[in-house]
Amino acid sequence: MPQNKQIHLDNRPQGEATASNFKLVTVETPALQDGQVLVKHHFMSLDPYMRGRMNDAKSYAAPQPLGQVMGGGTAGEIVESKSDKYKPGDKVVGMGGWQEYSVVNVEQPGALRKVDTTHVPLSHYLGAVGMPGVTAWYGLVKIIEPKAGETMVVSAATGAVGSAFGALAKARGCRTVGIAGGAQKCKYAVEELGFDACIDYKQHKDVGSLSKALKEACPDGIDGYFENVGGAVMDAVMTRMNAFGRIALCGMIAGYDGKPVPMAFPQLLLTNRLKLQGFIVSEHMEVWPEALKELGTLVGTGKLRPRESVAQGIEAAPEAFLGLLKGRNFGKQLVKLV
Amino acid sequence: MPQNKQIHLDNRPQGEATASNFKLVTVETPALQDGQVLVKHHFMSLDPYMRGRMNDAKSYAAPQPLGQVMGGGTAGEIVESKSDKYKPGDKVVGMGGWQEYSVVNVEQPGALRKVDTTHVPLSHYLGAVGMPGVTAWYGLVKIIEPKAGETMVVSAATGAVGSAFGALAKARGCRTVGIAGGAQKCKYAVEELGFDACIDYKQHKDVGSLSKALKEACPDGIDGYFENVGGAVMDAVMTRMNAFGRIALCGMIAGYDGKPVPMAFPQLLLTNRLKLQGFIVSEHMEVWPEALKELGTLVGTGKLRPRESVAQGIEAAPEAFLGLLKGRNFGKQLVKLV
Repeated sequence: MPQNKQIHLDNRPQGEATASNFKLVTVETPALQDGQVLVKHHFMSLDPYMRGRMNDAKSYAAPQPLGQVMGGGTAGEIVESKSDKYKPGDKVVGMGGWQEYSVVNVEQPGALRKVDTTHVPLSHYLGAVGMPGVTAWYGLVKIIEPKAGETMVVSAATGAVGSAFGALAKARGCRTVGIAGGAQKCKYAVEELGFDACIDYKQHKDVGSLSKALKEACPDGIDGYFENVGGAVMDAVMTRMNAFGRIALCGMIAGYDGKPVPMAFPQLLLTNRLKLQGFIVSEHMEVWPEALKELGTLVGTGKLRPRESVAQGIEAAPEAFLGLLKGRNFGKQLVKLV
Repeated sequence: MPQNKQIHLDNRPQGEATASNFKLVTVETPALQDGQVLVKHHFMSLDPYMRGRMNDAKSYAAPQPLGQVMGGGTAGEIVESKSDKYKPGDKVVGMGGWQEYSVVNVEQPGALRKVDTTHVPLSHYLGAVGMPGVTAWYGLVKIIEPKAGETMVVSAATGAVGSAFGALAKARGCRTVGIAGGAQKCKYAVEELGFDACIDYKQHKDVGSLSKALKEACPDGIDGYFENVGGAVMDAVMTRMNAFGRIALCGMIAGYDGKPVPMAFPQLLLTNRLKLQGFIVSEHMEVWPEALKELGTLVGTGKLRPRESVAQGIEAAPEAFLGLLKGRNFGKQLVKLV
């Protein structure tokens, strides 16, 4: 059996997460039981939600156990099968975690899904045509409920979720405005992802300055906002929300490392009669088929051209993940294992 | 024509509102035109939203103009009529403002509404069977959407909105827990208003202590919260919200005087997938008939026994209003003018 390199959570962060929280471990892959397959991971997904699981705190997901493989999405191929549902060579996505191989019980619901890589590259099933894409779809379609002509804003606009959000909102006739970190990302958001405008938050040192930039980019105000980051960016967007605006709350990276970041102007929720709703896409499996169909079509027809940041080799995963939390990635953050 | 004493907004508050922001003015009531009536106010309503209008800031309501009568709800009787729709002696509610008399054009939509005082005392049309009652109804029924067996919490529980909320939630089979300031109010909330429990926030000097008291009063967590005050009370409630909880945001008194009060733990909106929605009842006139019918029945059958704080005479209005902002009222704050 092949050797399998894994990244374990070794200890919990005290404040900011660091590389020393993780540990590289090499194990033998076990012999398969009936009904099991061995998946060789081609790509591992790195996502901000993983930071929350590193804490031992009450949250929507159980904490990541210490001394075990970090959980996470994976895309790969079957290399050995003791199930007649899969044969070697089949491309699959699953939740294999931070390791090179995983043994999967195929009967476990939702554990593995076969995918077609004819029109959509395998890695995109971890991004635009996977969990991040469906996340954008749910927030836009089910919480924000956009109308043509409205203005939609998304933070972390060039990330896996943000870029899908932009394409989905554009397809619904909305003005789309992104917020991203750096001139290069903003250029990409407008030229490649089709955003009508993109604001580089790094050019704005306070909420007032960012708020002013939002006013220019959103002359009719903001009707829908998809929140990936929280903190000062969210505060600034809230100052520009129109009456009856909707905010889909998907992530608050700003508060993941250490202390909670307060919301500066909660009274705006009242004065502008805003709706703000937090959600987790894995609790809404019923929308996945519809969402994946639209996302697959957007990618297949070139209307959504997601960008990827690819780190090479399992050893690179911790640093790539820490970079993601700092916004150093540019597009969907992956680790390539083959 | 009778003399009419009025309270004008003389100047805007710098930070905390004070009595010197107001000015007492005496004018003659003008002769009536065709289609007008003269209303003698028996009661004036004092409500927290008025504080927001004293500022010259963008908000849902236009700012209260300087040098004019403070706006507000009134209940009274027709004393002179040049309309065949009203005759002297008719009891009416309207938006007559802080003055003893008002001249009303009866054709103006929503300006005046005739009420029946056979089973419901006139003053209650400014409280439980008026705007505050409908406010509670809208937040509970349309935003929180309670299910029997769930736990509902309301701040300012003995106020006009809070007491109606308690009765409406109880009628739907919920556990109802109030938050109020002082042992006397809490005793009243449980013994007279039918709350299952009531927490005296003045006994808790920080969020942690109030959160602990909420845990005891809400052993199954909190599913719905009706927010009247904001600030630390809201922060504490948020720590006890169950997954998929709903928060109806109706008022944030804590932030009305001066600087905005931040929300301490916005990440809980995400981790617990909460919905938070601000609303203004005057934008939902379509629900008023249904809501007033239920509220009138609750009052008529003794299931809702609203308490009133009554100040005597127009001159007492400013101090009574400032007391309301400090929580010194006990029940619906009125000014009696006859």
